[in-house]
Amino acid sequence: MDSTIMDYQLNIRSIFWRVEKIHADKEIVSRTHQGKIKYTYKEFAERVRKLTTFLENKGLGGKPIASIAWNTHRHLELYFAVPMLGGVLHTVNVRFHPNEMEYVITQMGDSAVFLDEDVLDIFKESKLNLQHYLLNQDYDREVNSQLPIKDFPDVDEKSGAVSCFTSGTTGRPKGVIYSHRSIFVHSLSLLSADVLGISSSDSVMVVVPMFHISGWDVPFSALMTGSKLVLPGPRPKAEDLLQLIQEEKVSIAIGAPTVWIDFINYVNKIKADISSLKSVVMGGSEPPKGLIKSFVDMGIKVYHAWGMTETEAIATINKENDIDKVTRQGYPIPGFEIDLRDPLGDRLPWDEKTIGELVVRGAFVTAKYLGQESKNSWLRTGDVAIINSKGSVKVVDRIKDLIKSGGEWISTVDLENAIMSHPKVLEAVVVGVRDEKWGERPVALVVPKEKVSEDEIRDYLLSLNAFPKWWIPEKIIFVDSIPKTSTGKLDKKNVRDTVAKLIH
Amino acid sequence: MDSTIMDYQLNIRSIFWRVEKIHADKEIVSRTHQGKIKYTYKEFAERVRKLTTFLENKGLGGKPIASIAWNTHRHLELYFAVPMLGGVLHTVNVRFHPNEMEYVITQMGDSAVFLDEDVLDIFKESKLNLQHYLLNQDYDREVNSQLPIKDFPDVDEKSGAVSCFTSGTTGRPKGVIYSHRSIFVHSLSLLSADVLGISSSDSVMVVVPMFHISGWDVPFSALMTGSKLVLPGPRPKAEDLLQLIQEEKVSIAIGAPTVWIDFINYVNKIKADISSLKSVVMGGSEPPKGLIKSFVDMGIKVYHAWGMTETEAIATINKENDIDKVTRQGYPIPGFEIDLRDPLGDRLPWDEKTIGELVVRGAFVTAKYLGQESKNSWLRTGDVAIINSKGSVKVVDRIKDLIKSGGEWISTVDLENAIMSHPKVLEAVVVGVRDEKWGERPVALVVPKEKVSEDEIRDYLLSLNAFPKWWIPEKIIFVDSIPKTSTGKLDKKNVRDTVAKLIH
Repeated sequence: MDSTIMDYQLNIRSIFWRVEKIHADKEIVSRTHQGKIKYTYKEFAERVRKLTTFLENKGLGGKPIASIAWNTHRHLELYFAVPMLGGVLHTVNVRFHPNEMEYVITQMGDSAVFLDEDVLDIFKESKLNLQHYLLNQDYDREVNSQLPIKDFPDVDEKSGAVSCFTSGTTGRPKGVIYSHRSIFVHSLSLLSADVLGISSSDSVMVVVPMFHISGWDVPFSALMTGSKLVLPGPRPKAEDLLQLIQEEKVSIAIGAPTVWIDFINYVNKIKADISSLKSVVMGGSEPPKGLIKSFVDMGIKVYHAWGMTETEAIATINKENDIDKVTRQGYPIPGFEIDLRDPLGDRLPWDEKTIGELVVRGAFVTAKYLGQESKNSWLRTGDVAIINSKGSVKVVDRIKDLIKSGGEWISTVDLENAIMSHPKVLEAVVVGVRDEKWGERPVALVVPKEKVSEDEIRDYLLSLNAFPKWWIPEKIIFVDSIPKTSTGKLDKKNVRDTVAKLIH
Repeated sequence: MDSTIMDYQLNIRSIFWRVEKIHADKEIVSRTHQGKIKYTYKEFAERVRKLTTFLENKGLGGKPIASIAWNTHRHLELYFAVPMLGGVLHTVNVRFHPNEMEYVITQMGDSAVFLDEDVLDIFKESKLNLQHYLLNQDYDREVNSQLPIKDFPDVDEKSGAVSCFTSGTTGRPKGVIYSHRSIFVHSLSLLSADVLGISSSDSVMVVVPMFHISGWDVPFSALMTGSKLVLPGPRPKAEDLLQLIQEEKVSIAIGAPTVWIDFINYVNKIKADISSLKSVVMGGSEPPKGLIKSFVDMGIKVYHAWGMTETEAIATINKENDIDKVTRQGYPIPGFEIDLRDPLGDRLPWDEKTIGELVVRGAFVTAKYLGQESKNSWLRTGDVAIINSKGSVKVVDRIKDLIKSGGEWISTVDLENAIMSHPKVLEAVVVGVRDEKWGERPVALVVPKEKVSEDEIRDYLLSLNAFPKWWIPEKIIFVDSIPKTSTGKLDKKNVRDTVAKLIH
């Protein structure tokens, strides 16, 4: 039986309506190459309308357009103007190699590029011969001189709105295009009290790059509900973040654990006041317990979120304040479903013991990568996990990082976290190396805080009573730093190459 | 450009997935004719699966089915089982006259009726010759004896799920059919921190009838996020509500102002402890300031919500704790848009002065009534309002209740609230009566708390300095009670008839 409900499109325009009509006096704060810029949602909306006219005049309406940009108000204007004209904003990772930039921009068929000044050189190194605009005062002048567009075209909610490529450590980056609808539903889901619970009285700082999974959609969420939005601009350092937190009374901040490790060290060193901060959201990789403890001890809540490019970032969340539990990836948010499967695709029990591949589906899950055929069933995440009877996920490892030793699995993530909990260790990564007898054996790369021996670490691991003896690495290599991907994750492919060279 | 996002249906099944898989250990508490019943979401889900089998066996799958029932766990089971089988649950107002029941059930073409024992007599008075099932122990036995259905059919999110008829004070009731999608998006929007902000640690009592706009969708919201859900059953009195609040540590309760007036009087009389209560949500009519003050003085927040059958209930919300401001209807929630129009349909400014008709659209707004042609543009609400520059709505009156006197408008709602703020007045209603000289003049019907004269009230109204002199009613009639509609609103049509008889 049909419903009588109207056919209302869940699109970016419907978020923009709230920005302009309901939250007009709220603020957006942006740290830029030209200093801190602050304006109201009303001024932002006016700029979006002018930018839209600019795009139309340049013949860019409805086309895919690349941005290679930091978290600024100008980038945010593109987030709205491009999709509301029916185009897709392709947010390119500023840390991509020029060859990768060329690859992803060609794949998307972008018609123009908007970029920050400090990535111009890298962009020029790519072989792209593309119309480009610098996101600086020239952009401001150009945009400000336009007449604001009066009416936006109707855009179907299932159209593409924002595109992001995986920074894949194996193979070429793969493209995902989020729809208006997926952004709307995901942003709304994030607003739930049991998810991020952002409110109009919050000051929200998005440290996670806007070139990475649309800043986990948090910019859209914040604007939907009328929070103050704080964008920390190009290459923010710990002191930049601290300054913004203090000046803008940031109450909730979102970013990867690596960012927070640097930040909390700095805060502790100078004994800074961050009392405005009520919660910190971490995701992208499992936050070390020591990091969580640092915040929790200061009365700041740590929300641990899990997600991937393929799930529009935050898809599960863990808000348990218990330090031993908050390393779990947590519960699926509304609009998102999980399950556990064996290699044949059969369902596995949620019993906290059975290890399987995490599979997912939902309103903000991709059915495929750009250029591929759609599958539209459960998406295989490549993450190996256990799930407890209440549906809380614990990711054990990436399938390709799991170590098979003597026919049994070793979780590199568990070993890494255990090693990093040693007081003399700053960072650690574990990879498998071929072994005649056992198939594979774990090898650890460790960045020490202070002098520490291999045996000290091994004894410590044994003392935890958390692993079988055969999990303990025979080989622990001390290094100055660990290779990371362009999104700040441990680059295990690179680590494996390094280890291979060091061992042989 | 197409997105790569999968085609995931926002339907009741996707809420049910969370009920069963994520919040299995949470509780549903139900006050029934057979006493208080308490079970877990897991047991609830099992029952829904069995009820689904029962419906299938009876040949009722995919068909419209009526319920004439109070807020109980059994009614809640129908909320899920019927739509998940592709049918529409038509929630019939238990207070309808048998003729109205016959009318609405015939209009919907319902295939069967599930009803509470105490409405059986009324149902039998209707001329309906329909298969019916009593929601009592017989129902329990029948359902419990079924095998749980394994897989639910795929149901398109735009299909009808729940139906409700307006209790219209003029003309026949008109039907609205909510879709799976509208229920999903609305329930999710209610979870936002800036809307109801219900969380899994809340105990939510839904006093608003489940036969009225699906309990404002709050049962769906609560189950989506895993709150304890408390359903107060048949004809709950103030002492029943108090008992449930105390026993189930209710933290948020939802209902019409009339319910809370009785409740707070009772609580004050016996000096009861309601300290578990953090917030009370009121809607359906404007809550009197005295009522709001009673709660606020006890440290309980009052959320004032506005909505109508046509907007799936809660569509704007006001969470301002300021007693002078909380009578405003507040801000549109995500997924919902408002505007102000003149009689020709032209847009009016949001300047807090200009009075116009409130028009709305959104993901949970009806495009038409059952049996009518779809318009799919802005819906005219029939409410006359002003909107301030921030988008906060203040409903001034119903278009048909506005009084035109000497060519100027008089708001009956404002007059009623002013009269009700008099310490000797319990309730008041104002209607227009024909007047030779002025066109119309206001007449007030007043239920006194204690003896009070017409002049006392008129002097009081003048002393408020809130109205022009010519707004003050020349005629104030004292009565024992004021006629209400089946949903507890002032029945102004009835009042006008009464006043006409009393005057002439």
